[in-house]
Amino acid sequence: MKIEHIKVTDPFWTKYRAIVKDKLIPYQWSVINDDKEIAIEKENADAYDAVEKSHAVENLKIAAGLSKGHFYGFWFQDSDVYKWLEAVAYALRYAPDKELEGIADSLINIIAQAQEPDGYLDTYIQIEAPEHKFTHVSLSHELYVMGHYIEAGVAYYQTTRNQKALDIAKKMGDCIDANFGPEDNKMHGYPGHPEVELALAKLADETGDAKYTRVAKYMIDQRGTRPNNFFEEQLKNVQAKKIEDPYYGDASKPDPEASYFQNDVPVREMQSAEGHAVRMVYLLTGMAHVARQTGDQSLLAASQRLWEDITQRQMYVTGGVGSSAPKGEAFTFDYDLPNDTAYAETCASCAMSFFAKQMRDARQDADYGDVLERELYNGTISGMSLDGEHFFYVNPLEVDPEASKNDPMKSHVKVQRAAWFGCACCPPNLARLVASVDQYIYTVTDDAIYADQFIGNETTFDNGLTIKQTGNFPWSGDVQFTITADQAVETTVAIRIPAWSRHQYTVTVDGQPLAAELDHGYLKMKRNWISTTQIKLTLDMSVQMVHADSRIKDDVGKTAIQRGPVVYTLEQADNGRHLQANTLPATPEFTVTPDDTTFAVPTMKITANALHTDAATPAGSLYGTPATTLTHKQQLTFIPYFAWANRAPGEMMVWVHQA
Amino acid sequence: MKIEHIKVTDPFWTKYRAIVKDKLIPYQWSVINDDKEIAIEKENADAYDAVEKSHAVENLKIAAGLSKGHFYGFWFQDSDVYKWLEAVAYALRYAPDKELEGIADSLINIIAQAQEPDGYLDTYIQIEAPEHKFTHVSLSHELYVMGHYIEAGVAYYQTTRNQKALDIAKKMGDCIDANFGPEDNKMHGYPGHPEVELALAKLADETGDAKYTRVAKYMIDQRGTRPNNFFEEQLKNVQAKKIEDPYYGDASKPDPEASYFQNDVPVREMQSAEGHAVRMVYLLTGMAHVARQTGDQSLLAASQRLWEDITQRQMYVTGGVGSSAPKGEAFTFDYDLPNDTAYAETCASCAMSFFAKQMRDARQDADYGDVLERELYNGTISGMSLDGEHFFYVNPLEVDPEASKNDPMKSHVKVQRAAWFGCACCPPNLARLVASVDQYIYTVTDDAIYADQFIGNETTFDNGLTIKQTGNFPWSGDVQFTITADQAVETTVAIRIPAWSRHQYTVTVDGQPLAAELDHGYLKMKRNWISTTQIKLTLDMSVQMVHADSRIKDDVGKTAIQRGPVVYTLEQADNGRHLQANTLPATPEFTVTPDDTTFAVPTMKITANALHTDAATPAGSLYGTPATTLTHKQQLTFIPYFAWANRAPGEMMVWVHQA
Repeated sequence: MKIEHIKVTDPFWTKYRAIVKDKLIPYQWSVINDDKEIAIEKENADAYDAVEKSHAVENLKIAAGLSKGHFYGFWFQDSDVYKWLEAVAYALRYAPDKELEGIADSLINIIAQAQEPDGYLDTYIQIEAPEHKFTHVSLSHELYVMGHYIEAGVAYYQTTRNQKALDIAKKMGDCIDANFGPEDNKMHGYPGHPEVELALAKLADETGDAKYTRVAKYMIDQRGTRPNNFFEEQLKNVQAKKIEDPYYGDASKPDPEASYFQNDVPVREMQSAEGHAVRMVYLLTGMAHVARQTGDQSLLAASQRLWEDITQRQMYVTGGVGSSAPKGEAFTFDYDLPNDTAYAETCASCAMSFFAKQMRDARQDADYGDVLERELYNGTISGMSLDGEHFFYVNPLEVDPEASKNDPMKSHVKVQRAAWFGCACCPPNLARLVASVDQYIYTVTDDAIYADQFIGNETTFDNGLTIKQTGNFPWSGDVQFTITADQAVETTVAIRIPAWSRHQYTVTVDGQPLAAELDHGYLKMKRNWISTTQIKLTLDMSVQMVHADSRIKDDVGKTAIQRGPVVYTLEQADNGRHLQANTLPATPEFTVTPDDTTFAVPTMKITANALHTDAATPAGSLYGTPATTLTHKQQLTFIPYFAWANRAPGEMMVWVHQA
Repeated sequence: MKIEHIKVTDPFWTKYRAIVKDKLIPYQWSVINDDKEIAIEKENADAYDAVEKSHAVENLKIAAGLSKGHFYGFWFQDSDVYKWLEAVAYALRYAPDKELEGIADSLINIIAQAQEPDGYLDTYIQIEAPEHKFTHVSLSHELYVMGHYIEAGVAYYQTTRNQKALDIAKKMGDCIDANFGPEDNKMHGYPGHPEVELALAKLADETGDAKYTRVAKYMIDQRGTRPNNFFEEQLKNVQAKKIEDPYYGDASKPDPEASYFQNDVPVREMQSAEGHAVRMVYLLTGMAHVARQTGDQSLLAASQRLWEDITQRQMYVTGGVGSSAPKGEAFTFDYDLPNDTAYAETCASCAMSFFAKQMRDARQDADYGDVLERELYNGTISGMSLDGEHFFYVNPLEVDPEASKNDPMKSHVKVQRAAWFGCACCPPNLARLVASVDQYIYTVTDDAIYADQFIGNETTFDNGLTIKQTGNFPWSGDVQFTITADQAVETTVAIRIPAWSRHQYTVTVDGQPLAAELDHGYLKMKRNWISTTQIKLTLDMSVQMVHADSRIKDDVGKTAIQRGPVVYTLEQADNGRHLQANTLPATPEFTVTPDDTTFAVPTMKITANALHTDAATPAGSLYGTPATTLTHKQQLTFIPYFAWANRAPGEMMVWVHQA
């Protein structure tokens, strides 16, 4: 069984997808073409100094012989273009646009011209160091950028049937297959930044050609094996040829054979998520996908083990992962989830969404949908302002502007989204996720349709069933499924009951209450579907006080407010300064109110009674006793976490003290 | 009025002073003479790699022409020797030792030979770059090391009447006076690391020669004035001569005209403590001393303003100051006092003690004694193990060994004291403070004797009064003062009532209760003292729960346990792991028990009932709800903060969650 056609009708995501289509995609196009002055964030700068350039499309034109000049930007600058193209591919499905398609077709022509006859394409190497093709994939991003093109090319072909788009991707896959593998005449290596593995798996899915899976699996299997002198040999190569290498010249860069690169042990022996978070989760996404394609149970088990490690020991309540800036946007150790120095890169939450989908496709468990939902409504979209033109790289759970300004440990924690980044990985990553959110709603197996996300849609399946899902999620817990079949269709329809509502929910089928044991978090209905069936699901939308595992030091004695899947936060704009001085009572009185005016999207705000501890200890003393502590009543207003930093800069805090 | 003779009889400090005399002084002597292999802590090393050298005495021998070789160590290596000598000077007062005195005398002979005819002495410059005398005092430590000698020479002369020791100091003072001042032929500058100011003030006190105060005041007054091209000119000097300078070669070093060096505004305009904490507080110590010597009220006001800024906005409950490692052992901003990334250098707490004493000598207020007491019983002596041979540079208020190992932001936070440091400023600083603790007990004015500290002693004053103070402070709050006068002496005896007991204390004079208003925190008794008078003071030694100003984020919802002046802490050795998961009730039941066995010094331990939140949220989930939170009762054992890290390495936490 598979999906024939899906249309998202959801109010929440329609708004976001319109932002992506109408604002983000044109904005990013102008940025990567240097069509307008853009503000690029200088590292540690207090202000966003304007007027630098992206040069990303220009790099491709130079490589294609259509322009002259030097490469500019990061080694992985090409990927900004490809991720934009991938977002366009998805956007054209819900918002056909011939002009945009024409622009994308032209871009693909440039990319085709830039591609070398053997399929290789990396503009940095081609323009600046052609003799260094694949000589240092441990640190270069050659396979990373080609992987991103493969994803984009496949997606664009799927939308438009532009054959050239797919052919470029296949040629890249062929190039990688020709250069990497167990054969003596191939390199026995793998990239320092995983990405190509998940892309090759997608290419195999599209083309049906198993060789792409084979080379992806080869790279996964080789990773971290010993003895494996691949990186060492590459390093010698590079040094011998004295390449001007922004990485190798710097002894302080991390050891390429280290956990930072997920390269210290073979992947099946990994016990916990380590190192650079995006690298780690992209690798896992590829592992899970390849495991499913090849039926490799040990690879799937390793993927599952690390899934559990991340989601049960290393994930913020917002879905953010990778808690450490100084370790390099990296995972750290179990339960180390500081709120005010969090890294929680937008890309890492996007990657978690991709990983969740691959695990979901491999295993029937609502856990994946639970985590995906956490990412979708919190840690991913917090990376973008509601004007679609400002972005966070880092998604903290607590911010104090004074600390961001004065504390070097918090200089990465910004209080305002930037117009663009020199390292612009996050904005297009978020764009392609939002534009493809329809792919995350259903999981279809031979004998069942699983409704994983409550994103309103109208979907036709190839067995003749149609499902229309309506509601006002995440603000309302009332979700209607209208299931229609002209002719009888026997199959199972399963609905994920979210973990936050599993203690309380109701389901009616054509008005009759349905009581059924959940199976791995799913309510399953195996029926002979005929005519129209109305399923009404009512989820628990009461305000929930989330408590963290007590091993997370920073969250002890605090609560995070959640309603449905949406994590809430306090902002200075509503609550004044010194947010940490507020204490919620054990049983606060919450009031939930629709709010259509504060933000560019409708939200619901939550108010609660609290006590604010006044600064006054005995006059002139930092330290007093309980007897000298003064408090006053304060009403707190919580807003959705994803909507923070859309007003004047100020303090923000997710985890609030509770008596 | 002044003190004629003072003898410390206090059980607590006698033990510490014995450690200094019997262990620390011989140990440091062997270290600075490279007599044995010492373990020097490598930065960020997991282990203390052994076998490096101090070379400090050898540097002096080379400069004296008694040995050959190169300078080794930090620029300020000389100061290790001088601080040792100063500690010896104080130790010989309470533990006369002819052999030790002979060693010190020999050392002074070497120092005298190393000193140049004009009084200059800095072995780094003399051995390695003699043409660079005073060419870069903005970053060199020439004036710093000479200042430390001056302190040592004065102290040693005061103890032993070794004239050569004082003459070296006077020659240094003369050299500095000859080179710095407003005259055209002198440098209009001041050192990058303040220290010499406070030393010159001491030299002036001893010699009665006001020129030393004058040059100290000149440097203080010049500091931060604009336009003042002194540092810029020096930088050009150095660059023109291409000195091999470990600082100037490195562009990443802080701007010498910045708040890091307290050099951005004139000292009288400073509004808050900024920059490197030890520099800041040494400067303030010199400012307060010179203000008193010269009657400069604006300088005293500036000192007082910064005293209040530090003690009311930037000081840990342990007395630690300078909360940031990445800013350079520095002050940060108001109420920024993170517990687990604290710097709180031992030297900075020593410096706060020196500053407190100078402020105390300038102004009659118990506040200074309160802060000094906080330093003496907490943040200073925590820098030394109870074996006298291991030391902390950094004194955190919360430690998790896993975080220290894995979190680069906490790599400076050690879980074990080191045997020595490459930068060995802290151990001898603590030694000289402990050895001179008798100087902090009384403040004597023309018409009053102020008993500032409850350190048992027998003291004779030059008006014929003797005071014998006995007790078992800080473990007991019963303090007896026996005041004897053979002939009638009319004067005021004032006793500081500590802030922590000001709400509850009793005083009897010859058995009769005394009720009197406190004057600036002092209980004042103006009498005609004759024969013997018995004063019994009873302080409130109940266990106190300290709450912090709610603007200190890390301490909200937590309490620090204090009894008398001693701040307590939890250690893993007593309480297991996950200390943060313990919550004290609002009114815990505390039990206080003498403990003579756990540590090398007698202490008292405190136990309290608490709830421990178990890790289990819903199985396999990081986040649950209050309904799923499980707790169990746990008895907590608190030990004095200063005694932490004398057992197996583990977690430590001062601020404990409280319901």
